[in-house]
Amino acid sequence: MPPETTTPNSSRRSERSRRAILDATYGLVMEKGYAKLTIEAIAARAGVGKQTIYRWWPSKGAVMFDAFFDAAYSGGEDIALPDTGDIEADLKAVLRATVDEYNDPEYSARLRALNSEVLADSQLSAELFDRMLAPGLAAYRTRLEAAQQAGQIAAGADLETAVELLLSPIQYRWQLGPGPLTHAFADSIVDIVLPGLRPPHPEG
Amino acid sequence: MPPETTTPNSSRRSERSRRAILDATYGLVMEKGYAKLTIEAIAARAGVGKQTIYRWWPSKGAVMFDAFFDAAYSGGEDIALPDTGDIEADLKAVLRATVDEYNDPEYSARLRALNSEVLADSQLSAELFDRMLAPGLAAYRTRLEAAQQAGQIAAGADLETAVELLLSPIQYRWQLGPGPLTHAFADSIVDIVLPGLRPPHPEG
Repeated sequence: MPPETTTPNSSRRSERSRRAILDATYGLVMEKGYAKLTIEAIAARAGVGKQTIYRWWPSKGAVMFDAFFDAAYSGGEDIALPDTGDIEADLKAVLRATVDEYNDPEYSARLRALNSEVLADSQLSAELFDRMLAPGLAAYRTRLEAAQQAGQIAAGADLETAVELLLSPIQYRWQLGPGPLTHAFADSIVDIVLPGLRPPHPEG
Repeated sequence: MPPETTTPNSSRRSERSRRAILDATYGLVMEKGYAKLTIEAIAARAGVGKQTIYRWWPSKGAVMFDAFFDAAYSGGEDIALPDTGDIEADLKAVLRATVDEYNDPEYSARLRALNSEVLADSQLSAELFDRMLAPGLAAYRTRLEAAQQAGQIAAGADLETAVELLLSPIQYRWQLGPGPLTHAFADSIVDIVLPGLRPPHPEG
């Protein structure tokens, strides 16, 4: 154990620097956008040397990931969809809430930075997926499985594709802009996707 | 008319420089990825000064857009979906081809650069949409309208959302990686989406 990392003082100082770096990164991305983020600017705002940043993170993308995680995903483990017994109503409620989230400027800026970095550096996409997306997709899947057991969705339905069909049009519209992100759009997604998941004789 | 832009020689030289800049940009993105692209590197490879680049384009994103357009979208105006009269078979054929395209490393690298830049600079998303996406979405829409007239799709179906439901899961899986981009995935998209677009009594 190297002494400089184990004394209580240096450990506290390390944690303070780490916190300052993450806060500086978050603030800079929100104010100026991710494209303009530099390690120099983070170091200046955090009051640390560039070497301190590079000691903990290999790139600005890596710092940004941790900054956004710290800010947004604490406590996100217990994510679950509502279950009122009405799969159509529950999916519409949660997709409307998702639309509201994408329309929030701060959420959108954060997502923009994360997705841009993932596209520029394909190594990061597995990390983004595991840390951010997988828990959300699993929550949808759990809700669809409950509907399946309630006989509202066919036993053989491809739930993996179904979950992506529900979520991907919102990301697509947000990212590429073919139309406005509205509650009507969220409802329409459910109205088109759900019939393809129903049992052959829903009344039978 | 300023003489330095109208003599045949300077106009040919301009066109040669423009071409060299676009080719250099395309090559650099393909070889090193978009994140590592710099105006300096483009200038060095194209054998021009940085000022020559900045005279025509405001940013590396703008050069990249034009480079990728020149390389990929000449003649893309007459885009149309197959129409064999069988909407299910036609959609599966074209979505399978789309999956193949996203799986092509060169196409994927190009799309990665474009999408990353659009996310980093939201001003560009309208341009990406108008130049790249709108013609493709319109082609899907035209095919769905033909199916509508043939009685295979309901008169009141929301075709705008339908088109995005067909295309967005492929972009989503490619970009965020929840699963493999296969022909089976393409088929499954159509199998789930199409029932929600059918007329109330398809056999009636």
